[in-house]
Amino acid sequence: MSSSLFRALFAPRGIALYGASGDAAKNTARPQRYLRKHGYAGTIAPINRTRREVLGETAYPNLAAAPGEIDQAFIMVPPEDVPEACDECFARRVPVVTIFTDGFGETGEAGRKVEDALVTKARAAGVRLLGPNSIGLVSTSPATALTVNASLELERLPVGPLAVVSQSGSLIGALLSRGAARGIGFSRLVSVGNEADLAVGELVDLLVDDAQTKAVLLFLETLRDPERLARAARRAFEAGKPVIAYKLGRSSAGEALARTHTGAIAGDDRAADAFLAACGILRVRTFEALIEAAFLARGQRPPRGKRVAMMTTTGGGAAVIADPLGTNGVELVAPPPQLAAQCRALGVRVVDSPLIDLTLAGTRASVYGPVLEALLASDHCDAVVAAVGSSAQFHPGLAIEPILAARRAHPAKALAVFVAPEAPASLALLAQAGIAAFRTPEACADALAAFFAWRAPRERPRVDSAPAAPSIAALGIPQAPAQRLRTPEEAVTVPFPVAIKIDSPDIEHKTEVGGVELGLRDPHEAAAAAKRILERVRAARPQARIDGLVASSMQAGLGEAILGYRVDAQAGPLVLVGAGGTLAELYRDFALRLAPVTLEEAREMVAEVRGFAPLRGYRNAPRGDLEALARAVAAFSRLAARPDVAEAEINPLIVKAEGAGVIGVDSLLVLRDGARDHGAAA
Amino acid sequence: MSSSLFRALFAPRGIALYGASGDAAKNTARPQRYLRKHGYAGTIAPINRTRREVLGETAYPNLAAAPGEIDQAFIMVPPEDVPEACDECFARRVPVVTIFTDGFGETGEAGRKVEDALVTKARAAGVRLLGPNSIGLVSTSPATALTVNASLELERLPVGPLAVVSQSGSLIGALLSRGAARGIGFSRLVSVGNEADLAVGELVDLLVDDAQTKAVLLFLETLRDPERLARAARRAFEAGKPVIAYKLGRSSAGEALARTHTGAIAGDDRAADAFLAACGILRVRTFEALIEAAFLARGQRPPRGKRVAMMTTTGGGAAVIADPLGTNGVELVAPPPQLAAQCRALGVRVVDSPLIDLTLAGTRASVYGPVLEALLASDHCDAVVAAVGSSAQFHPGLAIEPILAARRAHPAKALAVFVAPEAPASLALLAQAGIAAFRTPEACADALAAFFAWRAPRERPRVDSAPAAPSIAALGIPQAPAQRLRTPEEAVTVPFPVAIKIDSPDIEHKTEVGGVELGLRDPHEAAAAAKRILERVRAARPQARIDGLVASSMQAGLGEAILGYRVDAQAGPLVLVGAGGTLAELYRDFALRLAPVTLEEAREMVAEVRGFAPLRGYRNAPRGDLEALARAVAAFSRLAARPDVAEAEINPLIVKAEGAGVIGVDSLLVLRDGARDHGAAA
Repeated sequence: MSSSLFRALFAPRGIALYGASGDAAKNTARPQRYLRKHGYAGTIAPINRTRREVLGETAYPNLAAAPGEIDQAFIMVPPEDVPEACDECFARRVPVVTIFTDGFGETGEAGRKVEDALVTKARAAGVRLLGPNSIGLVSTSPATALTVNASLELERLPVGPLAVVSQSGSLIGALLSRGAARGIGFSRLVSVGNEADLAVGELVDLLVDDAQTKAVLLFLETLRDPERLARAARRAFEAGKPVIAYKLGRSSAGEALARTHTGAIAGDDRAADAFLAACGILRVRTFEALIEAAFLARGQRPPRGKRVAMMTTTGGGAAVIADPLGTNGVELVAPPPQLAAQCRALGVRVVDSPLIDLTLAGTRASVYGPVLEALLASDHCDAVVAAVGSSAQFHPGLAIEPILAARRAHPAKALAVFVAPEAPASLALLAQAGIAAFRTPEACADALAAFFAWRAPRERPRVDSAPAAPSIAALGIPQAPAQRLRTPEEAVTVPFPVAIKIDSPDIEHKTEVGGVELGLRDPHEAAAAAKRILERVRAARPQARIDGLVASSMQAGLGEAILGYRVDAQAGPLVLVGAGGTLAELYRDFALRLAPVTLEEAREMVAEVRGFAPLRGYRNAPRGDLEALARAVAAFSRLAARPDVAEAEINPLIVKAEGAGVIGVDSLLVLRDGARDHGAAA
Repeated sequence: MSSSLFRALFAPRGIALYGASGDAAKNTARPQRYLRKHGYAGTIAPINRTRREVLGETAYPNLAAAPGEIDQAFIMVPPEDVPEACDECFARRVPVVTIFTDGFGETGEAGRKVEDALVTKARAAGVRLLGPNSIGLVSTSPATALTVNASLELERLPVGPLAVVSQSGSLIGALLSRGAARGIGFSRLVSVGNEADLAVGELVDLLVDDAQTKAVLLFLETLRDPERLARAARRAFEAGKPVIAYKLGRSSAGEALARTHTGAIAGDDRAADAFLAACGILRVRTFEALIEAAFLARGQRPPRGKRVAMMTTTGGGAAVIADPLGTNGVELVAPPPQLAAQCRALGVRVVDSPLIDLTLAGTRASVYGPVLEALLASDHCDAVVAAVGSSAQFHPGLAIEPILAARRAHPAKALAVFVAPEAPASLALLAQAGIAAFRTPEACADALAAFFAWRAPRERPRVDSAPAAPSIAALGIPQAPAQRLRTPEEAVTVPFPVAIKIDSPDIEHKTEVGGVELGLRDPHEAAAAAKRILERVRAARPQARIDGLVASSMQAGLGEAILGYRVDAQAGPLVLVGAGGTLAELYRDFALRLAPVTLEEAREMVAEVRGFAPLRGYRNAPRGDLEALARAVAAFSRLAARPDVAEAEINPLIVKAEGAGVIGVDSLLVLRDGARDHGAAA
């Protein structure tokens, strides 16, 4: 039952410590020291084969000898001793065993086996594992500082509404310490380690029901339990508890560009992006925004527009936010006439700029407060950014009170405050009032961009009917007439001109081996080309299996697109639409979503692709049939209803003039069993 | 003479204050309060028509009555009283007059005229002006806190090696306060305001000769005095004093993409980028990196490679730097075998990763220090990043001492330290030792990217001979045969097939008005097309001046490029090469440099354009003649030797197969007097 699991994790009545050192200077002495330092009120039972006392507490030779209710065991013994310690815990059915020790699944196959065996035994005993390789967890109220992380040397636990679930152990310390320094408090912090059993998704699920947790922050290296995380994120959204994620891996995606097929183009990080967005999780890209952005989303629903109003007493301090906001695609809006008049009546010089700069005079509460109230009350913007200058450093009360008052009067509108000087006291006042406050302009712009990209968790659209067969033809997307040629001599029967290409499961990039010829005008040219192709390919790749050739009728249109579908190991089924030719790869110019998508979502995807600008009428170019393209994307995404399909691609998909539709020229569908369909007549 | 100017600015023997308030709570009381609070030892002479005393100091009815050497006057009176105050200063030939009052050039034409008149009078009197709209300046030793900025409420001026020259007044306070909080000290901070007289370039020049200044930080909104800044930056480079700039305006550049011609594509910010790079100035893109990056470059020369070695006690704390480093194109390198063996001998588990993760065990100085020393001594990297975990927060001495020792032993290699927790004391220890230390991973990655992009100030290549005429033909870049048609009936004599387009100085985007037809195969098709074009254009733009039509022979090739040249008002002559078609605009895919460029620089430019990947043999595509393209770029850039040319463009420039050269199809050159040359035979 989850509430007993919650108690065992975050409010254990008793804790057994395996491997606790009696030398207070050692790392393994920390959990015991930190538990007591921060006022843990329950039983601590150091388990020690030889000592009867550890750091002033009675030690026990084994777990069976320890008295009272032990809800959690924390294991720091060397890896080879971990199984025996766990066996004691399983025997006593300790609800949660947290393993700090590393050297398991993260080190390779041998470690993975030991880890798997621990999980199997734990399940049999009804015991849950946290870790291995977990640095522990912290609960601020009641205080349970059960961790080896040195950040717990701090004097007082910063109590507050943010929960942290982290795949990096050391960073829970960095977040705790950065939060504490500026008045941001936490409810729980958990290091999940290898997630052998308890994983991010289940922990988020527990935290949704935690009254002390108002937002959940995730530090992610990968997605190990995506379905459970998706469900938990939806519950969190419904409970009004925003989930904010910082995920590593943005740059490795770049490497994937070196390969063509959809999977590689999409890249793991773009897939993670699509997944997190579909879960209603806000993704930040700067580290400190992880603790700063929560208050921006707290109490909010995903915004409709992306219009930001800005006010400041320090022109430069606002410009340093406006600049990265602009590169993030956020729109800065100037006050409408009536609002501008209100500002002028307060003595503010309103110029033709989206920025309301009060200058030094605006440090007076009688100006700052009313202007901020007017902005918070106005419909012309979806969020307000207020920048504060030097007064925040030496007169935090005076500088911040007008903001707090304006906030109290108008609690609904999203509000972000940037403090230009080093001003931890001002940041703390804002944090205590639940107002999003930022100490770098980049994090402020990043959090706003994440806020504006925020959408409600996506209902996966129901596919009314799965494609009747696992084939391109069954999708209903027009395909150019194509014909399988078993030999180069076989007569081409599809309309000329045609393209001919090699058909081989072993050759990914056909043009690289001379495997394609275009614009063949008659049977004679076609036969000669087919012969040349076979010769070149056999010379270049003597080992490749060759299934024959495929001839397809050439198609004229206004532009080209690429459609892709694949089942990602982490994110699940994905659909992609990108600019044609090499643009999707060269410029990473594609849109990616969890599949299936609705027609409306498909339209949004098409609108995101910059390379379709000419098809949208850019520079008066003739418009392409982007509506037909969107229909094709939605139809393609229905492959998600066919579990037998592993991946598929149409490349190129020719986009004709408005109203004239689209037509696929080259397509490939791969089944999970490895079978391949080119969309060509057999 | 500059040394007397330096003294008057930064070490004035006496200061006259106009408009100093006797009410200590008022902003205009601040300069007097701050001067005394921070120990200014010279004469302060408040000038006041009615009071004989201001805040305990003798006041004078006018400047003539004030005794002693007055080296600087600081003016805070209302705008209408500024000219009279200045006149007194001019009459006494006060060397520097700093005007805090705003409401001059920044407000429009009327204010600009008053400002210009002040400058004229000042020049006649041999007096230099700082401002108007300057918040003042700060010198830390001897202490001269002559500013209205509230950041000077701080207890002690942070003395140190960094000078700040800022076009934003309030941000000198933000930088001062952020630096002070973590032990980064300053020599001088100057707010330049409107730069009516003293501008950024001249101030940098003065600071190069300041023994207390070891690096110069610029906060820029625009470039007002680029030539002087370029000269000063070169002197700074030669003196080993890095110049670091944060410049606003990155996002507005995006808007410029809505227009085609080179000037707009290039955008002001990309031009500024090219300018700053050519000056040897490091440009950072995060605000805090401005004060953090200086120590990374200090004592260094521009690096040859961009290889970074990373070590850490906190895996997550290193990953948050590695990720943005990767997106910035910086290469992470794993230790070579011998170095890996050294690490293993110290008990470090070296795995197949560029990251050396010492884990918690590595917090011991006996491990951290030797590993860092080994990295600093190794040739396999151009810079080292060392991340420090929680120990930095509570045991700064223990955590930082091994870094200081390793640095002392190996002072040459560039070193960046990231401190994962909130740890101002550790940051201060590092700053005091002149080691670059970062409190956000993003600033760390940003500073390293700026460091690796750093080049020595560029010698502007000599143009051996200017193009003989201000024309495309004189550049020696092959041009497709082209012919000016005065009427649609005029016979086309250039080889078919041809393209025909309208020739009008009033029509920027010819295709938008039906002004272009392509692929005309014979004189009959050409004549009919010419007629249609004229009809369409006259219908679409009845007011446009039409000079006739231009017919040019169509050219086949492997790809297209665009060449652009223009004289930027701020940065000077610029040359651009971009991907052809609409790619340069859609994806901002172009390289930009100050013109002229050498052939070697032109090759670098061509290599930067992603859209040329197919021409580089991507996916086994046939290679294009990129060497000929580079020669064309260099030739085009020689327009910089023709002051009569305002801008020029070749679009498209067809790139043929390797060895087969390039050929321009459509070109345009505009003289300063407005005359236009299409490169077509007359």
